[in-house]
Amino acid sequence: MAVHLSVPEFLLPIKGIRLATINAGIRYKNRDDMVLIEAAEGSSVAAVFTRNAFCAAPVTVARAHLAQAPIRYLMINAGNANAGTGSEGLAAATTTCEALAQVAGVNTNQVLPFSTGVIGVQLPVAKVTSALPELVASLTEDNWMKAARAIMTTDTLPKGISKQVSIGGQTITITGIAKGAGMIHPNMATMLSYIATDAQVEASFLQQTLSSVVDDTFNCITIDGDTSTNDALVLIATGASGVAVGENELATFHAALKEVCLFLAQAIVRDGEGATKFIDVQVEQARSREEAHTVANTVALSPLVKTALFASDPNWGRILAAVGRSPIDSLDVSRISIYLGDTLLVKGGQPSPDYTEAQGQAETKKDEIKIRISLGRGDAVANVWTCDFSFDYVKINAEYRS
Amino acid sequence: MAVHLSVPEFLLPIKGIRLATINAGIRYKNRDDMVLIEAAEGSSVAAVFTRNAFCAAPVTVARAHLAQAPIRYLMINAGNANAGTGSEGLAAATTTCEALAQVAGVNTNQVLPFSTGVIGVQLPVAKVTSALPELVASLTEDNWMKAARAIMTTDTLPKGISKQVSIGGQTITITGIAKGAGMIHPNMATMLSYIATDAQVEASFLQQTLSSVVDDTFNCITIDGDTSTNDALVLIATGASGVAVGENELATFHAALKEVCLFLAQAIVRDGEGATKFIDVQVEQARSREEAHTVANTVALSPLVKTALFASDPNWGRILAAVGRSPIDSLDVSRISIYLGDTLLVKGGQPSPDYTEAQGQAETKKDEIKIRISLGRGDAVANVWTCDFSFDYVKINAEYRS
Repeated sequence: MAVHLSVPEFLLPIKGIRLATINAGIRYKNRDDMVLIEAAEGSSVAAVFTRNAFCAAPVTVARAHLAQAPIRYLMINAGNANAGTGSEGLAAATTTCEALAQVAGVNTNQVLPFSTGVIGVQLPVAKVTSALPELVASLTEDNWMKAARAIMTTDTLPKGISKQVSIGGQTITITGIAKGAGMIHPNMATMLSYIATDAQVEASFLQQTLSSVVDDTFNCITIDGDTSTNDALVLIATGASGVAVGENELATFHAALKEVCLFLAQAIVRDGEGATKFIDVQVEQARSREEAHTVANTVALSPLVKTALFASDPNWGRILAAVGRSPIDSLDVSRISIYLGDTLLVKGGQPSPDYTEAQGQAETKKDEIKIRISLGRGDAVANVWTCDFSFDYVKINAEYRS
Repeated sequence: MAVHLSVPEFLLPIKGIRLATINAGIRYKNRDDMVLIEAAEGSSVAAVFTRNAFCAAPVTVARAHLAQAPIRYLMINAGNANAGTGSEGLAAATTTCEALAQVAGVNTNQVLPFSTGVIGVQLPVAKVTSALPELVASLTEDNWMKAARAIMTTDTLPKGISKQVSIGGQTITITGIAKGAGMIHPNMATMLSYIATDAQVEASFLQQTLSSVVDDTFNCITIDGDTSTNDALVLIATGASGVAVGENELATFHAALKEVCLFLAQAIVRDGEGATKFIDVQVEQARSREEAHTVANTVALSPLVKTALFASDPNWGRILAAVGRSPIDSLDVSRISIYLGDTLLVKGGQPSPDYTEAQGQAETKKDEIKIRISLGRGDAVANVWTCDFSFDYVKINAEYRS
């Protein structure tokens, strides 16, 4: 049951982007499990990928293709990650790109492949390739919602958002979709997310903006600490609106893109496996953003903190213990304050004399919980967003393959 | 339900050590929750403590006392950690030491206090102090088993072992006890463990040997990645056997102590919260022991690996993904092999062509599972021992305070 997240009411089409979905029967019956996204000729494409050394075959192929040629197609399947599949998996990813290139009339390296699902099972290549003609034939601008659904695995809801901003008096549109919902601890990108805009943005600007925004959004969420083998996020700027984003407009575009990425990243947490609470861990007054992130991350990953919050138990000693074991230099606990919502728990390393269990309970009973930790030794801030740790997380992950 | 662990059949007394237990009513009814351990005058005492910056008040006091005077008493309570209790907690720890010193006729700094249990609740000082006269009066050499029971919190079984070895033709005895069972990810020591020997060992030798042994035993276990605020391990050498351990005998003593510590550390894992499987993660052919430990630790901490093993699911892709995200330099996956028991899963970064799901299932159905990862770039080895992640872990930790 996702926390304060519902099906997007609408997703705006992006001029220059067409999408199609199909049930290729890769793993799921009775639902679409493949998506094709076409970018108009002349689009700029930026992407970030997982830093997992055992990255999936499609990640390896996508990285190579991105460096070689202007990208025209993103080909995505759910239900099979094509990860841990060795040279056979690499060949499978390349073969499916070749097949699509032939059907669509482009070069193989103009296709980026993506997979999500079970690791260690070979991709059923024939199922993918035989779905391609119908996919290409059914491309339309209006399929964003269907695409958001077709990339889901253990997600309970499709995730997407559209945003319009004015640049030089003209409107540009950004639409993005994403999927989670386990093995979520992104390092440069999350599981799968696709964002497009009709703005015209030069490729190096686009990549630079995306990398910066991802550092503050997708790289600040965690569900279970497990960085996926398949994380990938692609941002396409088709330019079809005719509105150019130059250096002067970059701040506006950056802010709009950040809003989209933040929504999608938090949506993944809200729909994290077994999630019943959305938890915002904010660390302030740190020496550096990295230090703040490290402490926030340690708290956000603590199974003891997460199980306590699942039980709505204001067991703040577990928060304190997680702060105390954070791998940062010479932490002086006498400068630390900790808040649960607006309730002061710890001040100068000491339990707050005014704190009552009833206050703590009132905060932990909420389904959106804010933990705020002040280190008292600098002015850097970082947030990490996570969810609680419930019976259902264990259930979902113990039964995932059965 | 502990994995292959039973109540110790016997625990041998150590000459020069007397113990007593009592129900002080700190948290538990109908069971003893305080232990007093007395070391004969002239004993050498070594100890290691948690590195959590928010260490508990008794840890702070014990560290100070250990540096000041020859230790005569260890005073332990279960049910209240006296952690996150600020200056009031520090005063409470000192007050209880003063009270015991008065009853027992020693100096305050000859007492080491220890607490385990809920964090963030003030220690009921009066309950502790009023139990002291009876505790001192009932000290005997034969109470090791009762002490092993009285220090338990969420442990389901008492943990202890005795070992005898011959040194220069004479027998020395080592007896140790320990308790877990959550917030277990020791950094220099585990929750609480007390070990004593009648050998005569000079204090600096004793500390050196203990620190080295702990690095290979207690510091290699993890249940949930949460390093406790209260971890403490104390080793007492009473010398009452009259058998001196000098430089020549140190190797024999080291080996015997390691056996005791390894048993106790693994016993904590076997009785980890909700544990149904005992998992040995071994990383070989690493560039350094630290690198091997880092990779083993990443796998041992992965909630996805641990939930899969709870379900006896040989979902080895999750092992591979955890290896791939390990924070070590320039990992070359093409040199990596992964085994589950004797079954080869991955060879040279590729899935083993001979692997069958039935083989994997046969391994994961066992209640003792060995994961072996060869990095193919050095000759260092490290093991991390952990347990699976079950419904009961969530249940125990969601309900711990209720």
